[in-house]
Amino acid sequence: MIERDDIAPSDLHGLIETFFARSFGTDNPLITEAVRRMLAAGGKRLRPRLLLLAASAAGADPRDHLALAAYMELIHVATLIHDDVVDRADTRRGVNATAVDFGNRISVLAGDYLFAWIFRNVTAGYRPPIPHILSATLAEICDGEVLQLQALGNLDLTTEEYVEIVRLKTASLFAASAACGAIDADGEDETVRALRAFGLNYGIAFQMRDDLLDLTGDEAALGKPVGNDLRERKMTIPVVLAAETGDQEVRAALGRCYDDPDPSATTMAETVAAIFAAGAVGKTREAISGYVERAKRALAPLAGSPTRSTLIEFAEALDRDTEHARP
Amino acid sequence: MIERDDIAPSDLHGLIETFFARSFGTDNPLITEAVRRMLAAGGKRLRPRLLLLAASAAGADPRDHLALAAYMELIHVATLIHDDVVDRADTRRGVNATAVDFGNRISVLAGDYLFAWIFRNVTAGYRPPIPHILSATLAEICDGEVLQLQALGNLDLTTEEYVEIVRLKTASLFAASAACGAIDADGEDETVRALRAFGLNYGIAFQMRDDLLDLTGDEAALGKPVGNDLRERKMTIPVVLAAETGDQEVRAALGRCYDDPDPSATTMAETVAAIFAAGAVGKTREAISGYVERAKRALAPLAGSPTRSTLIEFAEALDRDTEHARP
Repeated sequence: MIERDDIAPSDLHGLIETFFARSFGTDNPLITEAVRRMLAAGGKRLRPRLLLLAASAAGADPRDHLALAAYMELIHVATLIHDDVVDRADTRRGVNATAVDFGNRISVLAGDYLFAWIFRNVTAGYRPPIPHILSATLAEICDGEVLQLQALGNLDLTTEEYVEIVRLKTASLFAASAACGAIDADGEDETVRALRAFGLNYGIAFQMRDDLLDLTGDEAALGKPVGNDLRERKMTIPVVLAAETGDQEVRAALGRCYDDPDPSATTMAETVAAIFAAGAVGKTREAISGYVERAKRALAPLAGSPTRSTLIEFAEALDRDTEHARP
Repeated sequence: MIERDDIAPSDLHGLIETFFARSFGTDNPLITEAVRRMLAAGGKRLRPRLLLLAASAAGADPRDHLALAAYMELIHVATLIHDDVVDRADTRRGVNATAVDFGNRISVLAGDYLFAWIFRNVTAGYRPPIPHILSATLAEICDGEVLQLQALGNLDLTTEEYVEIVRLKTASLFAASAACGAIDADGEDETVRALRAFGLNYGIAFQMRDDLLDLTGDEAALGKPVGNDLRERKMTIPVVLAAETGDQEVRAALGRCYDDPDPSATTMAETVAAIFAAGAVGKTREAISGYVERAKRALAPLAGSPTRSTLIEFAEALDRDTEHARP
């Protein structure tokens, strides 16, 4: 167990890392190794940090909610392990670590085991409705990912349809993290609802910012090549907004990129230029700011909590990062 | 909902099929279609039948436990969908329906969604410890499958190690089905324990029989080629028992087959002949009978229940089938 005096309760990232280093292990050594490698690859631990902030906003000591916070990160890690599974058609492309090092079968089993292990622990250690929220959230994530696959290359996808996919595949886990932190801390219903709404709007802004960084970000900081989403024909928010202008030149440029199984650097550069020319990058920044604002407004019922300002900073970090990104 | 008068409560297979046909559906049409196709491919529905028999043995009407029975089959279906996921190295070989028709990514997501959907429904509708038993069982299944992958081609695997793998990957779901049927029917602790032990021993016998049929079964009845497990280098019980004799000729024949990535028909025939010559088929039949006997003996506390004889028949069917199998 973690010693209470080791780390300041305000250093949420440190608390989470220490918890993982000292406490994570499963019955199966190979699966434990696969998961530890994913954890060691880093990450901002946004979902567990949000859970701990929510517990704090509901009046609890975040250190009492570390295990539940860790499960939120591990649900995310399990979905990443499954994202690594490659299709036969995808073997030409670059693939991620787990599937390459362990093979598809072990990747699938490791993710399944991790989901089961989380639910086993959560059903043993947490009251209703927490086990139900976690399983319902995982169903939403999978539903959203299937919808995203079905929407690949669909230039007629509307902003509303995009937001619904993102609500399911990304925002639902942030919403669940915030809600479960408050519930586990015996927060009042109004507090739980406020934090859930914060998490949901934060999650939508987070995904939109992730989409934007695929176009404007720094390759080293991203840890993946710029334009990766374009190459995968994903309907990111800048692409949706660019297509939605109806500008025929812009749609033709997007179509050329998305119809090409292996677009050249020139095609990629022309596509990015067309998205910028359509004003879609500026509109994406406005959309992110809009959801950050909604997240902050959702915190109104927490006016008396000292954690409210930390949550506001947490959300505003999304807005700041998009300003710092390259044009 | 199913009408009570449609089907006799003794026709468990009919009750289950009708329940699936009328009641199964998820929020995601593509996933629903993938699962319906797996269900339409048939199956003996042994896990849900066992759950309904256990509920009946605990004094309940099986028709009141159909949904929980269906979840047991769906856990099995979800693991089958994930079994379909092919490795890059495996794309030379024949593959099953889901991964071929929908691709690896959809297969992974469909299985994940189904697990999550089951846990979402079970956490909403069933008391502790049922949700915990289901998630702990899924963790055991995955653990067992990883151990099985790690044991591929290991001619030094002992019978004890084999039984432990089978306990996890196969018998745990039969044990959980029997236990949850009794728990959901408010059975007494002794009844739950007896049925759980029945399911566990039945499950081990079931897997051993499945292993045996890979060598002795009829291709049309199996729905897969005879010798499929050998080609996959699986350590089935006849192979374990043949290797355990220590006979150098037998081990050499097994080694030639397992060291060959694409064994010829001649190599396969020689391997099967070596397994027979080692007396391993007869020993496998004895082992199956032994676990069927243990399953039946576990039912002693149910001496007063009219369902006990149905459970005994259910177990003895495993023994009968192995006698009818080809030599």
